[in-house]
Amino acid sequence: MITSKQLESILHSEIPITQAMQIAVESCSDTEVLLSAPLEPNINHKQTAFGGSLYSIVVLAGWSMTYCLLDRLGINAQIVIHQSEVDYLAPVTATIEACCELNNDVDIEKFKKLIQRKGRARLKLKSRIISEGKTAVEFEGVYVCIAH
Amino acid sequence: MITSKQLESILHSEIPITQAMQIAVESCSDTEVLLSAPLEPNINHKQTAFGGSLYSIVVLAGWSMTYCLLDRLGINAQIVIHQSEVDYLAPVTATIEACCELNNDVDIEKFKKLIQRKGRARLKLKSRIISEGKTAVEFEGVYVCIAH
Repeated sequence: MITSKQLESILHSEIPITQAMQIAVESCSDTEVLLSAPLEPNINHKQTAFGGSLYSIVVLAGWSMTYCLLDRLGINAQIVIHQSEVDYLAPVTATIEACCELNNDVDIEKFKKLIQRKGRARLKLKSRIISEGKTAVEFEGVYVCIAH
Repeated sequence: MITSKQLESILHSEIPITQAMQIAVESCSDTEVLLSAPLEPNINHKQTAFGGSLYSIVVLAGWSMTYCLLDRLGINAQIVIHQSEVDYLAPVTATIEACCELNNDVDIEKFKKLIQRKGRARLKLKSRIISEGKTAVEFEGVYVCIAH
C-alpha cells in the first residue's frame, strides 16, 4: 500500500506545478484520498482561492484515488483526465482541502477485468473541496486508465 | 479599450499563480481573447500539459473575455466562475493556446440591463485550447458578474 509521503513525492515529481501550489497529501487509503494546499500561493485578488487552483487540487484528488486503486490491484497504467464537471458553491477563504472517496457504485471487479482484457478502462469519480467544514466545490471526473 | 499588456498585468497581479504558469495575453479585443503558456512549467510526467493547468488557462480565457466586455460597457464588477464543463480531446505536447470568442448568442444588451438593474448577471462562454492547429480541450463556463 502506497503511503501519503510516497504519493506526495509522485505528485510533486510528475506534475511540477503542484510544488508551486504547495499541494500536500494529508492521507490516502484504499477508499479515500485527502489533499490540501495553503490559500496563499493559490489566492486571487478577492482574497479567495483561484478557481483554476481549486480545479487542479480536486482533479488531482481523483487522479490520486485512481493511482491508489491501480496500486492496490497491481496494475501499471497511465491515468488521463477525460471529462469533468465542476460546481463552485462557495468561495474558499482558508486552507483548501480536497477529498475523493471510492464509492460503492464504482464496480472495481468490472474495472479490473476491462483493463486486463482491453488494456484500458474508465473510472467516474466524485471529489469535493471542503473549506471550514463546508463543501465549497463539487467535482465529477471521468479518468481513463491505459495499461503500459 | 484595454490592451493585451494591461490585461496580462491584471492577471499576473490578481492571480499570482499565473506567473508560475507563465500565462501571457497574446491578444484581446471586443470579441476575442487569446492566451498562451509554454509547456515546460505546466508539464506532467507524460511530457504533455497537466489537465489542471489546461483548465486554469481556459477558465482564464473566459474570465478575460468577461473582463474585456465589462471594460467596454464601463461596468465595474467582480467576476466569479460558477460552473464549468470540460472535455479533453487530445493531449497537448507544445505551447498551450486558449481562445475565447464572444459569440453572437451572447445577448450583451440583456446582460448590461441585468447587471445595471439587479447588480448581477451571468455569462455563459465557450473557450478552447488549441495545440498545433487542433482543438485539444473544449470548455464551457458560467461566469457570474457582481457589480461593485
